[in-house]
Amino acid sequence: MYSFKNDYSEGAHPLILQKLAATNEEQQPGYGEDSFSVSARSRLREEMQNDNAAIYFVSGGTQANLLVISYLLRPHEAVISARTGHIYANETGAIESTGHRIITVETDDGKVAPAALLEVLKAYHLRPHVVKPRMLYISNSTEIGTVYTKAELSALFQLCNENGLLLFLDGARLGHALTADTNDLTLADVAAYTHVFYVGGTKNGALLGEAIVFQSATLAPEFDYNLKQKGALLAKGRLLGIQFDQLFADRLYFRLAHDANQMAYRMATAIEQCGYPFLTTPVTNQLFPILPRTVIDKLAALYSFYIWKTIDNQHDAIRIITSWATQEAVVEQFCRDFKKIHEEITRS
Amino acid sequence: MYSFKNDYSEGAHPLILQKLAATNEEQQPGYGEDSFSVSARSRLREEMQNDNAAIYFVSGGTQANLLVISYLLRPHEAVISARTGHIYANETGAIESTGHRIITVETDDGKVAPAALLEVLKAYHLRPHVVKPRMLYISNSTEIGTVYTKAELSALFQLCNENGLLLFLDGARLGHALTADTNDLTLADVAAYTHVFYVGGTKNGALLGEAIVFQSATLAPEFDYNLKQKGALLAKGRLLGIQFDQLFADRLYFRLAHDANQMAYRMATAIEQCGYPFLTTPVTNQLFPILPRTVIDKLAALYSFYIWKTIDNQHDAIRIITSWATQEAVVEQFCRDFKKIHEEITRS
Amino acid sequence: MYSFKNDYSEGAHPLILQKLAATNEEQQPGYGEDSFSVSARSRLREEMQNDNAAIYFVSGGTQANLLVISYLLRPHEAVISARTGHIYANETGAIESTGHRIITVETDDGKVAPAALLEVLKAYHLRPHVVKPRMLYISNSTEIGTVYTKAELSALFQLCNENGLLLFLDGARLGHALTADTNDLTLADVAAYTHVFYVGGTKNGALLGEAIVFQSATLAPEFDYNLKQKGALLAKGRLLGIQFDQLFADRLYFRLAHDANQMAYRMATAIEQCGYPFLTTPVTNQLFPILPRTVIDKLAALYSFYIWKTIDNQHDAIRIITSWATQEAVVEQFCRDFKKIHEEITRS
Amino acid sequence: MYSFKNDYSEGAHPLILQKLAATNEEQQPGYGEDSFSVSARSRLREEMQNDNAAIYFVSGGTQANLLVISYLLRPHEAVISARTGHIYANETGAIESTGHRIITVETDDGKVAPAALLEVLKAYHLRPHVVKPRMLYISNSTEIGTVYTKAELSALFQLCNENGLLLFLDGARLGHALTADTNDLTLADVAAYTHVFYVGGTKNGALLGEAIVFQSATLAPEFDYNLKQKGALLAKGRLLGIQFDQLFADRLYFRLAHDANQMAYRMATAIEQCGYPFLTTPVTNQLFPILPRTVIDKLAALYSFYIWKTIDNQHDAIRIITSWATQEAVVEQFCRDFKKIHEEITRS
Repeated sequence: MYSFKNDYSEGAHPLILQKLAATNEEQQPGYGEDSFSVSARSRLREEMQNDNAAIYFVSGGTQANLLVISYLLRPHEAVISARTGHIYANETGAIESTGHRIITVETDDGKVAPAALLEVLKAYHLRPHVVKPRMLYISNSTEIGTVYTKAELSALFQLCNENGLLLFLDGARLGHALTADTNDLTLADVAAYTHVFYVGGTKNGALLGEAIVFQSATLAPEFDYNLKQKGALLAKGRLLGIQFDQLFADRLYFRLAHDANQMAYRMATAIEQCGYPFLTTPVTNQLFPILPRTVIDKLAALYSFYIWKTIDNQHDAIRIITSWATQEAVVEQFCRDFKKIHEEITRS
Repeated sequence: MYSFKNDYSEGAHPLILQKLAATNEEQQPGYGEDSFSVSARSRLREEMQNDNAAIYFVSGGTQANLLVISYLLRPHEAVISARTGHIYANETGAIESTGHRIITVETDDGKVAPAALLEVLKAYHLRPHVVKPRMLYISNSTEIGTVYTKAELSALFQLCNENGLLLFLDGARLGHALTADTNDLTLADVAAYTHVFYVGGTKNGALLGEAIVFQSATLAPEFDYNLKQKGALLAKGRLLGIQFDQLFADRLYFRLAHDANQMAYRMATAIEQCGYPFLTTPVTNQLFPILPRTVIDKLAALYSFYIWKTIDNQHDAIRIITSWATQEAVVEQFCRDFKKIHEEITRS
Repeated sequence: MYSFKNDYSEGAHPLILQKLAATNEEQQPGYGEDSFSVSARSRLREEMQNDNAAIYFVSGGTQANLLVISYLLRPHEAVISARTGHIYANETGAIESTGHRIITVETDDGKVAPAALLEVLKAYHLRPHVVKPRMLYISNSTEIGTVYTKAELSALFQLCNENGLLLFLDGARLGHALTADTNDLTLADVAAYTHVFYVGGTKNGALLGEAIVFQSATLAPEFDYNLKQKGALLAKGRLLGIQFDQLFADRLYFRLAHDANQMAYRMATAIEQCGYPFLTTPVTNQLFPILPRTVIDKLAALYSFYIWKTIDNQHDAIRIITSWATQEAVVEQFCRDFKKIHEEITRS
Repeated sequence: MYSFKNDYSEGAHPLILQKLAATNEEQQPGYGEDSFSVSARSRLREEMQNDNAAIYFVSGGTQANLLVISYLLRPHEAVISARTGHIYANETGAIESTGHRIITVETDDGKVAPAALLEVLKAYHLRPHVVKPRMLYISNSTEIGTVYTKAELSALFQLCNENGLLLFLDGARLGHALTADTNDLTLADVAAYTHVFYVGGTKNGALLGEAIVFQSATLAPEFDYNLKQKGALLAKGRLLGIQFDQLFADRLYFRLAHDANQMAYRMATAIEQCGYPFLTTPVTNQLFPILPRTVIDKLAALYSFYIWKTIDNQHDAIRIITSWATQEAVVEQFCRDFKKIHEEITRS
């Protein structure tokens, strides 16, 4: 049965496997000092138009989040996140495990609003009886498929700077955000309007790997110690370097994400044409259609996906995700199947 | 310049890359539930003759160490290690970072002696003013290339059991230990005489990966939470599963380590024939010859290796490591070069 | 200016100071092994009708909370609390600092409802991607002055047992709860319907001190290590032992709390007689009257108290607290002053 | 039986109890903002001749140590200590519990030598695979009764500054050090030649309490958060303030320590006159005479003390401690008893 459960069901883009094979016998230094990592960093800095950026490759998103947050916060400091944020909803307390509270804010669309941020700052003032908010964590695209505009991101960045907060952007699905039809941000913008972010590889064509980017090396001068201490420094760092080197040659990273989005849009259109609403407007590779359980049951007999949220007695929102590997033929078949199910249900 | 600095300078064994490519498009569940991981666990359990073993694949040795130790110890408990132990000497305080003291014991050969263990237990008795020793950590092969015999390991295991200690064996180079000419242990023995250990892949043919093995699932019933919380649970767990599945098909793992050892023995013989002693008797893929600086300087012009330890005003011990990828021709050339250097030096 | 800001503005009850002076020259063992601590534990066990209880004296409430929670939870486990709970609202992330998430539930009255507890358990099920709820933390009296009934507490205890949760009751103001006019719980009930709780001394007549009570020593067999490790084991444990020995001789503890409550009731009556509502119905020594700012301003010229919460454009809830040391004459004066202010305001 | 086991067997100096009683009914702000704490800080700053010092009162030595070290170190940084240092030998891993390694150095006399410090710095250089040494922890007087000279302390301070290390002095028995006959340091010197230290009250006349002193507030600008988070901020901070206010009025602190030392000297003289050597030369209130077991057995029938260390088959070093409360008559009796025992043993 074909799975739309996530964007990490397949291996890596073939160009990555080819490069791994082609370079396999070269001897390289360990721990991220290999020539591939050096080249990948150089490509990323160029794409970001920031020569001062400090870049570290790590193996996954939860690891990236806990590394960055535990490094940048002092013990009494806290990070603010949407309640739907990955660090709060999906990481088994990884951040708290490093000693820090996540202060959550409610959102409709997974995006932190300036007003919500200011409310937190107001609530946490009774020093020293409360933690000190010191960082804002956001995701782009968010965990429910929405994206930040350039205006929104730059406003948050300014607000953070005015209030002594660091802005950290989780880019596990950054490619899908930056290639969304509604997007007006570039990678250089993201680099300019955050203190630190990461470029997700695992969900966009790599076997594994996220590239953590600090706006300036002065923000994290001893981050290498942290990588090693938390078990995140791969002996064969080449594995990460090769992948990012490939992903950022010829804009492969953006092309893969763009393709995944386009596949999702086709499915969204089919669902919309049948008259179903969405939890959030489809703009990236994650779709959250709200469907009658009757439709869901029939669809589940043909495809794998997650039931995301109970809406009412008869409806759930489901989550459908496409990836760089999602085949056009499968998408077309899905659209046909969906319409057929819809017709069967509405006729009965 | 050819490097003998470590056993992770190259990529992966070609059979692994082939399997990655061949299975690349298969959709698989994430987080270690893929069919390759299932198969690899099955192969390992068979090799260990232990159906109850709980097996988890992670990306590196420091990660494996901190995961196991932080899971098995309560906050006031400590782990005992040789001072040369990797957790003490090379992991940036990863264990202390999870809250635990490493109690070190001095050794000549990197192996913890029963008497040293008993001394620690005697010294740490003034409850509750001292930490409670609760685990013994050993490495096989050790960080200085030595190996435990079956008699030594089983004696330590018995001593641990008698004293309420858990025995944890770091197997980053377990393959090299189990295929050493002097070895009398099988993987099944290691599984029987430890509470938990890991099978190192990174230093024996994998791109990355260590297989943590608990003697029984009851020892670590909620270890999956710990993997996720510490950022060690790969989304594409297939990457680890495929590698261990290949390494434990047709005993590839043992063949690779055996080859590395044999290459090291040839080099050791050449060095011995020139009359130089070793810091520890060569039995695995790590050699620690003690050489005059004059020899070292000339050798360093031809090959890369680490200066390990100052011996006296004129001598250092160096570290030379071979791997599954070390080519016979290079080894032969090294032997010729070494003898030539020796002759030049002695003649002058 | 007289302060109603809290119940720790004065020193200790005179009987405690007398006992300190009378026993000052006796030599005693350190670290809680003194004869006074032994006697105090004995008195508490008798009062609780539980010979198996394990009792530890520590210096404050935040310390008690972090000691208990960090001891009883494994790293991936979390504690559930009302959002108003002291561990969430007032302790600078002390619990997160030991690595654990606090999962908060919203309440009207500061008391956790069984339904809210069940909702959390339902929400946190996607193992291993979420923390495991393992403890329920409640306060009695709560941070907003309410108390649990015997039916409520026993129902929560049963629910916890059915769901593998530990029930921990923060008794910083337990005396005030157990002597409230509406209370139907005894100390023995509290001991029977919780797994662990503490008896607060600091806010009820002691210089400092809380008595942590585990229902059984088997729940926390190595808690002594934890006390020492967290810096909570006083060398002169006699200081805590003497105080609890005095507080639980002749039911002093209950008499002091009862007096504080009665003083609060008089003030509550005066406020009610003027027609003002309360945030929560006054039942213990904490009052949260909702007053017009005009009244608050005049009152603040005579007495110290906290502004607790903004209610609307013209009203705030304030917090007034009485203690064992609150003098009847001051309370009478307050009542007269309050009525006078009320009359002035309403007349104008 | 009279105990010489430690210097916290009795309560507090009577002047402290009197002040507690005299001020008991005064209402005071909580959390260290009371007027007594303000006054005590002022007295300490004057005594130290440092108006910029930031001073915090906490309840015990282990607490002081973990608060200071966890605040000043980043996660990958370590503290260096003598192996006999209290943080390594007696605090149940309190420092490791906050995530940091203690790097130990061997000493004869409990004092860290500059050469030993430099060796550590040399050994810990392989960034990022090792922790970064960032602090030197010393005790004065040390755990075996020795004291630092002004030359020694200033040399260590200079060495620390040259190497980017912070110097932290544990002053649990600072009074006894500063009033030793051989001492040439003043409190102002200690304040000048350390980055942070604490003045121990618990072992010199207080019920509890240590005064942490940062050379400058800029060293620890948010230390108040840390106090609260670690459960160290007493609600009734007055308890600590009153004690230090009394101890530093009329130099009571120094007089008490001086008296304790003098009592120890008398006992030391009696022991020396019998011809017995000491583990360390007696200069403060801790004596470590090396005695035949025959003498120890007889002495143990009359007085309590600790067996400190086995010396050989027939001898142990014992530890005898005097305090501000040690009575002259008891000391005289001890000297007589000791000589009598000596004579009995030597005669037989």
